[in-house]
Amino acid sequence: MTHCAISDLLAGKYAVGETVTLKGWVRTVRSNPNFAFLNVNDGSCFDPIQAVIDNTLANYEEITKLTVACSVEVTGELVESQGKGQKFEIQAQTVNIVGLVEDPDTYPMAAKRHTVEHMREYAHLRPRTNMFGAVARVRNCLSQAIHRFFHESGYVWVATPIITASDTEGAGEMFRVSTLDMNNLPRLENGEVDYNEDFFGKEAFLTVSGQLNGETYCSALSKIYTFGPTFRAENSNTSRHLAEFWMVEPEIAFADLADVAQVAEDMLKYVFKAVLEERMDDLQFFDLRVQKGVVERLQKLANAEFVRMDYTDAIDILQKSGKKFEFPVEWGVDLSSEHERYLAEEHVGAPIILQNYPKDIKAFYMRMNEDGKTVAAMDVLAPGIGEIIGGSQREERIDVLDTRMKEMGLDPVDYGWYRDLRRYGSVPHGGFGLGFERLVAYVTGMGNVRDVIPFPRTPKSATF
Amino acid sequence: MTHCAISDLLAGKYAVGETVTLKGWVRTVRSNPNFAFLNVNDGSCFDPIQAVIDNTLANYEEITKLTVACSVEVTGELVESQGKGQKFEIQAQTVNIVGLVEDPDTYPMAAKRHTVEHMREYAHLRPRTNMFGAVARVRNCLSQAIHRFFHESGYVWVATPIITASDTEGAGEMFRVSTLDMNNLPRLENGEVDYNEDFFGKEAFLTVSGQLNGETYCSALSKIYTFGPTFRAENSNTSRHLAEFWMVEPEIAFADLADVAQVAEDMLKYVFKAVLEERMDDLQFFDLRVQKGVVERLQKLANAEFVRMDYTDAIDILQKSGKKFEFPVEWGVDLSSEHERYLAEEHVGAPIILQNYPKDIKAFYMRMNEDGKTVAAMDVLAPGIGEIIGGSQREERIDVLDTRMKEMGLDPVDYGWYRDLRRYGSVPHGGFGLGFERLVAYVTGMGNVRDVIPFPRTPKSATF
Repeated sequence: MTHCAISDLLAGKYAVGETVTLKGWVRTVRSNPNFAFLNVNDGSCFDPIQAVIDNTLANYEEITKLTVACSVEVTGELVESQGKGQKFEIQAQTVNIVGLVEDPDTYPMAAKRHTVEHMREYAHLRPRTNMFGAVARVRNCLSQAIHRFFHESGYVWVATPIITASDTEGAGEMFRVSTLDMNNLPRLENGEVDYNEDFFGKEAFLTVSGQLNGETYCSALSKIYTFGPTFRAENSNTSRHLAEFWMVEPEIAFADLADVAQVAEDMLKYVFKAVLEERMDDLQFFDLRVQKGVVERLQKLANAEFVRMDYTDAIDILQKSGKKFEFPVEWGVDLSSEHERYLAEEHVGAPIILQNYPKDIKAFYMRMNEDGKTVAAMDVLAPGIGEIIGGSQREERIDVLDTRMKEMGLDPVDYGWYRDLRRYGSVPHGGFGLGFERLVAYVTGMGNVRDVIPFPRTPKSATF
Repeated sequence: MTHCAISDLLAGKYAVGETVTLKGWVRTVRSNPNFAFLNVNDGSCFDPIQAVIDNTLANYEEITKLTVACSVEVTGELVESQGKGQKFEIQAQTVNIVGLVEDPDTYPMAAKRHTVEHMREYAHLRPRTNMFGAVARVRNCLSQAIHRFFHESGYVWVATPIITASDTEGAGEMFRVSTLDMNNLPRLENGEVDYNEDFFGKEAFLTVSGQLNGETYCSALSKIYTFGPTFRAENSNTSRHLAEFWMVEPEIAFADLADVAQVAEDMLKYVFKAVLEERMDDLQFFDLRVQKGVVERLQKLANAEFVRMDYTDAIDILQKSGKKFEFPVEWGVDLSSEHERYLAEEHVGAPIILQNYPKDIKAFYMRMNEDGKTVAAMDVLAPGIGEIIGGSQREERIDVLDTRMKEMGLDPVDYGWYRDLRRYGSVPHGGFGLGFERLVAYVTGMGNVRDVIPFPRTPKSATF
């Protein structure tokens, strides 16, 4: 491929006067009898580049009739732009028309304002718009920054399994994975479905978290992280829930809750800085068109000191706040979004790492504190969104773990391999989970997680 | 965390004479009445570091009784090693014993040779061994290098959906994803299962490939890649098949088959170089203990010129080879492993990019060549493994695509969104798929893909 990325052309990576070729899709065409101006975008950056076309080109007439999304190859001289906007433009020598748009009047992404709901219906075409192109690039930038952060810090990426034979965490409703013939199910003598006949020889589901599996590799390699899809079969039709979403879950050996909190803070700041450095073009669009202030918020967050606060102190603050909350606050309740946002936005005005929650509202694997009432759990609460990360130190003491499992109605026998980590060279360790789509939504200001993943899966919807 | 990674200690990143703390798991203990030698590994690199313990330490007796996999924290002075092997060792000041091994005699990863089959039974403990620690680090190195290669080349990582409502590619048997109550299935009047009642309102499956979805983003962003899990519900009990595996699928706009082949070659060389630069410690283990010659093979591949060859010429070469093949060769057959390996290993002695296959053995979306008999498909065949990458230029002409679909018994109506890409600004484009576990197996010389993914899923097996 000998053509140039438009991002490189606009960034001045080629010399003025050089003959270059670019390939992309038409955004706008303006013309008069003497000249046409073609704005072409190739997705490599937010902005299109302008090609100036002289009416002496053999196919000038055809060029003036191009519509949004037609594909073209433009060869010409890179020149400094006379007008406002971009620094460079192309004085076209040839414009090859590669692909037309069938019936431009009915093209679903025609050049006009569309609602996000309309664009969601055309998830295969929406990345061609300013908004969804920008989402895709920011999403990629965040993903690359996450891999880079962990790699540079000595973490090993581990692929924890997607298909699992046990709902070990009990974190939510699960999807069944099966190859049984639904219209002709094999049955046991008692009439129940015979999963011995199923592909894996037993019931299998889609994972809700890679954490427990991640702990096994952490107990050998010290620092690992997962970055993969996870699933919830919950009938939640909200702007914050997807049936299929990507999760980042580091797990760190020889770490306590303070260490885990520090890694969470460092990681978030690292990725905020990366997106500010690399994708300001897209961020400016979000700031202008999606949510005023997203850039300033990121700049603040990238340099903020994350405040540590105990759950117990937070309850006290909420109770003394004088605010009327929809859900009343007392020690022992799970905080809801209104509480989290009050703490982060009004009380502190910065991200908070809330720590040491009541054991009864947290999972069995979280480490019991000495008070016997709280566990070494933490949530990162960010202004403008509330909880963005949840984590904990894990219970590494086998006797305490077994007691906790029994208290919560779990049978230690079902957790043999997880218990083995505590029987053979157990170490203090912990980690956290970051819902990747919530991070992308937060960074871009997009209001619905369905608009920050290419093809959202939600109740009654798995199209494309 | 104020402790040091053993990789940094061994690499000389700390000054001799400095007091340092390391944390990890015991590999070996040797002792005499005066001294003990503790080899400790933390997974950050292949080698353990040696701690020398003087019998004046208060817990000297306990230390001498440690066994493999006990966890320890060692603080001491970094000194130059007197013996052979590592350049540095630790003169211990304190050794905190963190976690013991319950009944060392029955510990499943006790310090002796284990078969890979035995270790597969203990997939939660096998990363603690030399072999599986090395696999995990090499796998991570390859994954990071793949992300880096594409990111540096301007590609956008796209998360294509895991759950899909259509077997669009027809690439293989699929797993059903459902939340229906299997013991109480909703039924239509005709007695068939009523999938309207299922979570997604219709039948849903696990993806076999992200390609078709990837093409939608390629048609907007020019260069994209996927890196995610894919699934095959095939009852294949071989060393090359997994029910769940990770796949890398770039898709490139304004690209023809030659461009796609070049990206495949560049990517493979890039990742081979990365693993040679970053993980020689682990590679040397594989060379010594797993497959003689893996390092030399990688060094050759990283600098090899990949030979381009037409399928038709390959058939000719095979027919004239004088070799007796198990499967006879004639124009039109799909090549089997013996043919691929003969071409790459004996005939050329280098990787081959085999191109332009008969249309009847390839998928509907591959671009028809002018001869009307072949399509613009390519496979990368590598010495020692055979096919490692498969790709093609995609059919971007809607009339040709429709004809091909009908020839293959597919209904274009089922492919509305895929056809849209050809109706609205269609461009020549193409891409390929790399089975990530096959790459890891190839690089490490490990004989079975079940041993290069942390928790393999295969027929009748989804444990952990």
